[in-house]
Amino acid sequence: MPVKSREQYLESLRQMRPNIYKFGELIGDVVSHPATRLVVESHARAFDAAHTPEKEAVFTTTSSFTGDRIMRFNSLMQNRDDVIANAVMKRQCYRQTGTCAGALCVGWNAMNVMWAVTYEMDRDLGTNYRERLEKWILRAEANSLAVAGALTDAKGDRSKTPSQQANRDSNVHITERRKDGIVVRGAKAMIAGAAAANEIFVLPGSGYREPDSDSSVAFTVPRDTPGLTLVECRRPSDCRELEDGFDSPVETGTTQAYLLFDDVFVPNERVFMAGEYRYSGNIIRYFTANYRACIGGCVTGQGDVMVGAGVLMARANGLPAKTFRDKFVQMSVNNETTFGMGIGAIAMGYAHPSGVWFANDLMSHVNKIHVATLPYEVKRLLQEICGGLVETGCFPSAKDFNHEEYGAFIQSCLKAGNVSAETRARAARLAEWLTIGAGVPGCMHGGGSPDGARLVVRANTPLDDYAALARALAGIDEEVSEP
Amino acid sequence: MPVKSREQYLESLRQMRPNIYKFGELIGDVVSHPATRLVVESHARAFDAAHTPEKEAVFTTTSSFTGDRIMRFNSLMQNRDDVIANAVMKRQCYRQTGTCAGALCVGWNAMNVMWAVTYEMDRDLGTNYRERLEKWILRAEANSLAVAGALTDAKGDRSKTPSQQANRDSNVHITERRKDGIVVRGAKAMIAGAAAANEIFVLPGSGYREPDSDSSVAFTVPRDTPGLTLVECRRPSDCRELEDGFDSPVETGTTQAYLLFDDVFVPNERVFMAGEYRYSGNIIRYFTANYRACIGGCVTGQGDVMVGAGVLMARANGLPAKTFRDKFVQMSVNNETTFGMGIGAIAMGYAHPSGVWFANDLMSHVNKIHVATLPYEVKRLLQEICGGLVETGCFPSAKDFNHEEYGAFIQSCLKAGNVSAETRARAARLAEWLTIGAGVPGCMHGGGSPDGARLVVRANTPLDDYAALARALAGIDEEVSEP
Amino acid sequence: MPVKSREQYLESLRQMRPNIYKFGELIGDVVSHPATRLVVESHARAFDAAHTPEKEAVFTTTSSFTGDRIMRFNSLMQNRDDVIANAVMKRQCYRQTGTCAGALCVGWNAMNVMWAVTYEMDRDLGTNYRERLEKWILRAEANSLAVAGALTDAKGDRSKTPSQQANRDSNVHITERRKDGIVVRGAKAMIAGAAAANEIFVLPGSGYREPDSDSSVAFTVPRDTPGLTLVECRRPSDCRELEDGFDSPVETGTTQAYLLFDDVFVPNERVFMAGEYRYSGNIIRYFTANYRACIGGCVTGQGDVMVGAGVLMARANGLPAKTFRDKFVQMSVNNETTFGMGIGAIAMGYAHPSGVWFANDLMSHVNKIHVATLPYEVKRLLQEICGGLVETGCFPSAKDFNHEEYGAFIQSCLKAGNVSAETRARAARLAEWLTIGAGVPGCMHGGGSPDGARLVVRANTPLDDYAALARALAGIDEEVSEP
Amino acid sequence: MPVKSREQYLESLRQMRPNIYKFGELIGDVVSHPATRLVVESHARAFDAAHTPEKEAVFTTTSSFTGDRIMRFNSLMQNRDDVIANAVMKRQCYRQTGTCAGALCVGWNAMNVMWAVTYEMDRDLGTNYRERLEKWILRAEANSLAVAGALTDAKGDRSKTPSQQANRDSNVHITERRKDGIVVRGAKAMIAGAAAANEIFVLPGSGYREPDSDSSVAFTVPRDTPGLTLVECRRPSDCRELEDGFDSPVETGTTQAYLLFDDVFVPNERVFMAGEYRYSGNIIRYFTANYRACIGGCVTGQGDVMVGAGVLMARANGLPAKTFRDKFVQMSVNNETTFGMGIGAIAMGYAHPSGVWFANDLMSHVNKIHVATLPYEVKRLLQEICGGLVETGCFPSAKDFNHEEYGAFIQSCLKAGNVSAETRARAARLAEWLTIGAGVPGCMHGGGSPDGARLVVRANTPLDDYAALARALAGIDEEVSEP
Repeated sequence: MPVKSREQYLESLRQMRPNIYKFGELIGDVVSHPATRLVVESHARAFDAAHTPEKEAVFTTTSSFTGDRIMRFNSLMQNRDDVIANAVMKRQCYRQTGTCAGALCVGWNAMNVMWAVTYEMDRDLGTNYRERLEKWILRAEANSLAVAGALTDAKGDRSKTPSQQANRDSNVHITERRKDGIVVRGAKAMIAGAAAANEIFVLPGSGYREPDSDSSVAFTVPRDTPGLTLVECRRPSDCRELEDGFDSPVETGTTQAYLLFDDVFVPNERVFMAGEYRYSGNIIRYFTANYRACIGGCVTGQGDVMVGAGVLMARANGLPAKTFRDKFVQMSVNNETTFGMGIGAIAMGYAHPSGVWFANDLMSHVNKIHVATLPYEVKRLLQEICGGLVETGCFPSAKDFNHEEYGAFIQSCLKAGNVSAETRARAARLAEWLTIGAGVPGCMHGGGSPDGARLVVRANTPLDDYAALARALAGIDEEVSEP
Repeated sequence: MPVKSREQYLESLRQMRPNIYKFGELIGDVVSHPATRLVVESHARAFDAAHTPEKEAVFTTTSSFTGDRIMRFNSLMQNRDDVIANAVMKRQCYRQTGTCAGALCVGWNAMNVMWAVTYEMDRDLGTNYRERLEKWILRAEANSLAVAGALTDAKGDRSKTPSQQANRDSNVHITERRKDGIVVRGAKAMIAGAAAANEIFVLPGSGYREPDSDSSVAFTVPRDTPGLTLVECRRPSDCRELEDGFDSPVETGTTQAYLLFDDVFVPNERVFMAGEYRYSGNIIRYFTANYRACIGGCVTGQGDVMVGAGVLMARANGLPAKTFRDKFVQMSVNNETTFGMGIGAIAMGYAHPSGVWFANDLMSHVNKIHVATLPYEVKRLLQEICGGLVETGCFPSAKDFNHEEYGAFIQSCLKAGNVSAETRARAARLAEWLTIGAGVPGCMHGGGSPDGARLVVRANTPLDDYAALARALAGIDEEVSEP
Repeated sequence: MPVKSREQYLESLRQMRPNIYKFGELIGDVVSHPATRLVVESHARAFDAAHTPEKEAVFTTTSSFTGDRIMRFNSLMQNRDDVIANAVMKRQCYRQTGTCAGALCVGWNAMNVMWAVTYEMDRDLGTNYRERLEKWILRAEANSLAVAGALTDAKGDRSKTPSQQANRDSNVHITERRKDGIVVRGAKAMIAGAAAANEIFVLPGSGYREPDSDSSVAFTVPRDTPGLTLVECRRPSDCRELEDGFDSPVETGTTQAYLLFDDVFVPNERVFMAGEYRYSGNIIRYFTANYRACIGGCVTGQGDVMVGAGVLMARANGLPAKTFRDKFVQMSVNNETTFGMGIGAIAMGYAHPSGVWFANDLMSHVNKIHVATLPYEVKRLLQEICGGLVETGCFPSAKDFNHEEYGAFIQSCLKAGNVSAETRARAARLAEWLTIGAGVPGCMHGGGSPDGARLVVRANTPLDDYAALARALAGIDEEVSEP
Repeated sequence: MPVKSREQYLESLRQMRPNIYKFGELIGDVVSHPATRLVVESHARAFDAAHTPEKEAVFTTTSSFTGDRIMRFNSLMQNRDDVIANAVMKRQCYRQTGTCAGALCVGWNAMNVMWAVTYEMDRDLGTNYRERLEKWILRAEANSLAVAGALTDAKGDRSKTPSQQANRDSNVHITERRKDGIVVRGAKAMIAGAAAANEIFVLPGSGYREPDSDSSVAFTVPRDTPGLTLVECRRPSDCRELEDGFDSPVETGTTQAYLLFDDVFVPNERVFMAGEYRYSGNIIRYFTANYRACIGGCVTGQGDVMVGAGVLMARANGLPAKTFRDKFVQMSVNNETTFGMGIGAIAMGYAHPSGVWFANDLMSHVNKIHVATLPYEVKRLLQEICGGLVETGCFPSAKDFNHEEYGAFIQSCLKAGNVSAETRARAARLAEWLTIGAGVPGCMHGGGSPDGARLVVRANTPLDDYAALARALAGIDEEVSEP
């Protein structure tokens, strides 16, 4: 049963222990609770797609271990085409949900990164992490596990390392090392899609030194493991999701959560790093290379939907879409740039000796910079196309729209093109949701900030090599060194 | 009592008939109801400022009619300095509220525009509209009236004129002409600040022809005049305003409303145009010239607050503000551009023979294009400075923040710099509110779309004159005409 | 001898008939004449590189016909890696010359395009063009031929087709069809690197109809074939190339020429299309796909040199390069974008049934748009880094620099950092050459205009498919069609 | 005779001592020598304009001293309108010359700056500089003097002050103080329009300290004063100016020179500062405020011509100008922004107690940033409109165009629209000249670098004041200080 059905997936979530809070209340069933049902639906559509002929090749692949058909997000990415398929799958995910399905993505990437890093640790240190990881992967494959990835610690004072923090729980850390496992404690922040995940793949932060060994920890846990509590973040316009009516215009959604580890026991077979701080740099390097190359697929997929929303809205406003063709071209240019630049980074990547493929560092970080800027222009263009109705969501609520006294008057005001007032309202709320509402994903800081990417670009731009080229061309004989 | 106090202003609102709905319910008292109290507060701060020594000169001026001290927003703008003072006042308004206080601005501009257009009509047609207007202005001055302006009709099918619409109520129009006044009917959409207004100044749309005479109508009404119903629009994250706690982080706000005129009687002394369709073009021309020159003040004022929010947030994140100095410089460049370009448009404007000053058309529409683009970059930069907490509002709600079980854990996670977790949370919610929340004003489409502005730029760029310059320089003797 | 040496290449040029003019004079020996020696040197460096161990793999490859080692620019590009290698080779070309070496590139691309189109014509029409082409390729391989490519006709009145032109010679066309070949006549404009080419590969324009059959012609000729005259274009600051001294700062260069075909006979074995107008569309489609994907390599290679020139100039101005690190990061982002987006287009391309690989249409045209814009920002940034010396080439000529009376004074003025005045002057002249001098290549319009690319982007952005995605998400049941 | 005629102006130049070199040779008569005649023509057109009814008001004004009609560039700018008139005059200058006429501008600004600074020095130190300056101004007015301004020293090592330089002549400095005057020595670099000037107004650099007293010197000299030698800079494509034919397409031009002061005696009546280093900061502050506000007029005037050149070229290419209307709108937006933002800076400026008006510091430096970026986009758009002919000047020289053998063939190739081939060629060379040729002015670094402007923007953006606004809005009680 490696490729679960939607129903099997939902059932797996229903059987979990309630440990997620929002607005101060415990969520009983994530599948049906209004605060989480939308993000679950986003993920469920991937299981639908896996059983849909024209999307099957995107969402499933063959296990390199067993040869079985598996969900693609449980696979090792062994070559260029595998990583390109990651970007393509993400673009499709956004096309079918409009937003981020984090548990199909970050855990997958974490698993691949740890495949390389466990290889390095085992090779250098004689550990046997990779064997553990392989077993976990086999189980993930076999159960089509949706796995959220957790990198971002709460962090605390940014001028201090984990071990120097006043509040040691600002970073997840090992509080006890037992024979059969470790006990961890601390907070991870802004974890996407955790409510729809079966498990969480935890990675450490970067650049850790010896005193931070206890925070240099990588492992997996079931999302409902004892001692773990999730608190969902409050996103723009998210209380509309608790209402009826089309003000929350879609059936899909995203979430981000704080993960509070309160002395959580992790058995050895789920531990893939426990103190090897020297390898924390590689984790981030590999993670960001592939993540930032593939994230172009996400924003492009959402960009495709934004183009579509613009077309709908123009027409519902009574205007042909071609009125805005120059804007659609610019949207398309931006969309394809984040997608194509990411593909370029992948194509110019390299095979890690462990057997997984990583994208080119420089190019993937350039792509991150685009991902943090170009979609903002796409959103602005969409708002420009859509008019005032969308810019600030500027029309009455669904309740007013249907009000018995003045509802008809409002509907008659909203009707503009050759479609109904409700269609215009729904199209407007979709555009609002995509640009200034709950559908906006964290493309700026998700997976790290653009300023971090700029640092990598700087480090990977060989100024002196380029100066040597210029010097040779200009016929300059003397050395030209930094004053 | 030309310069009301805050309390007098609030009292004037309390005495009005309830006729505003939101979420399907009638709002009893706009001053205290959570859906409107914030926008009222935004306006009330202008009355405070009028009595504050260091702001008095910004918010008050001398009546050109009586010589009395009056609220600036009740004055005629007779020269460059008066219009520049409009832009400066708007910047200050945004600085003290963070967002749009529409009833201090649009009605004011409408009144000035009609000063010029009534002059033209009276001159050409022998009407006596200006006398009526002067009387109304004297009353507005004397009572420090906050006046919303209503231009945007619901419009309906955009390929048709008002008279061709299937639903005649898509545009406000005269249904009956009586000896003592007119009866009007129809809808105006997206009217800013109406809930905080004492009166509404209604202007017609543009480019009307003879069959649209009944829609060529300008007048004022009390906001609670019989037959008029307001329905407030639903804006991003606006249901937070109904809650306690800092998720709605400020005490100020903005609103936009649909105005439903259901056979409203307007007595003659409040009617300033009633059928003179040929003058509808000038109304829009004059209106947009000054509005689009001065709106730079608005977005710049909000930009100033965004710079400030970035400073707060950087520090609350544990980083010195100077880390982001290049971003602050870029924010400042964008801010000052919308402000300065607008001032330039005003400085290069002209005196209308009626005695009011209008900004240069070309330059004010160029400014509109900047107003519709540069603030988006400012917002993006603010989000970049602030980190993931702001981008998608990514941290738990105030209820979770204060939860008795896990609240302390969350607070310990959120503390990063040398300020409290709550300060960091408040700064983050402010930045969210400014960039992707309820504080976002309609700078893109408010007062008309940037594509409309581009049309004006095109019409005012003399291609053939410039070609003649080029031809003379290049020594080309023959004519070079359009193929 | 498939991989010629520099000397063999130069000798092959020396043996050609003089048929190139500039400034009204016939150029005797292109290898030594100051108007052409620089472009010849640009090409000669590729032959050096082919014999340089660390560059050999970039500039040579294995013939798919003979298995011999050949110059890469004579090869068929059969898969993704082959086309990527094209982009990489171009980047390296620019790194070692600073500018465009057209005869290493356009003819190569033309040959690959015709491999596909001759396949299609032979398949559909029973012609045997491909056999002819294969023979020609074998000879090109065997002789390491540098081949310029000629697409752009002089065109005449753009509202008319070739057959409608008043001057039929505005487009190259067949004037006579003989048993043993064809006679062609007319002009091709702006042909890069022809002076350094052994042969010319001529392709037709696009979208030809039946009456334009005579212009639907593809063939090769030796550069010095009887009846062909070349007139070199006048480029910025090109008369410096006729002088001594460092005002023309480099030993490399580029040229563009007008090709005047005055009844040139082309024997059948060199004719690969002669009237099959229906295939002219595919020629342009395939040509632009690969060309616009790979051209990112060119502008990136020049961008690398621009980064280097900025480093040199900063230091020669007395400032550490790190002063400008943000500008270098932005230059690098722009450079890698044109490169990486092109690689992405290639990676997402497809195998043509003839056995060659073509890049993705949409993505390669998006890249063209970047190629036409991003390098302009790179140049601006370089000028910003370099200071006034570079912006307008603002310092005295080499003659004045070395003047016996005031030369020493000038040199003392120019010395700023810890290098000599001459080094500063040379660095400045290099930056001038790259940004506003003879080194500027035609990245905007070379290979077609960005507006043409925008048309392709528009045609390849499926607005209705994207609208369907949006409609599904928004739960809109009714059709939303173009008004 | 305060308003000279063209002929009187030219005669005044002819009577000067030859002391200008270019390409190693002394220029006998600047009026007729091909290296300088174009810049002289640029200036002469201002004298024509002063006698042309429709331009008279732009180029002349009334002396505040004598009440006589004088050339505007000899006047004190006493209020907003006077400084706005400066910007307007510059725009007109560029419209009639296409490029920079430096001696109508920089000396004028220097004179106004020194009016304020001599006031300050006299007030504080009891000197009588202003009396000297007034006398000089009266003479300048009476003789319609064209005055170049010289600020930029050669500078040398940028990490050192003037007094620390190895080569003391890197900065102009006093070598001897006599009873009747001073002797100065050293080099000024990149001085615009000096060849067309009657006199030079020399100002010191900025931020000088006590040891740099000898470089804190302001004075005027005749352009041909004994001991002063000028060497003209080599600009892009400037040797075309030595040729016949339309490759140098215009009759106007600009120059920049190095000024070598070889122990030049300056009599006391021409000395306006001689050691008062504390005032050097104000000189730069006042200078840049007005200069950077008004320079928008320059780039806008050139932008107007670029719009015109685009119109001509489109038509000569056979296309209606309206094909490119969106590009023309964007060019116009950019043009009006540099103009309008500068006017805004002037309008928000202040009256100096000496009686002259200075623009707002923050806003004028924001404008400088735009002046250093927006025109680059205008140029790129012009190149995009014009096609390959312009981008790299890509067509044969005038000599080839008129060649007896193939000239007719080339002309037949170049004819595209309904104008002659020569008209198309002339239009193309004009666009080349404007964008990548000798007409490009130094808008990036002229009057200081954009990075310098960014520093001023940073210093004038009150981060803490803005943080206080944000803090008040967000209801944050505690202090939020820099970590």
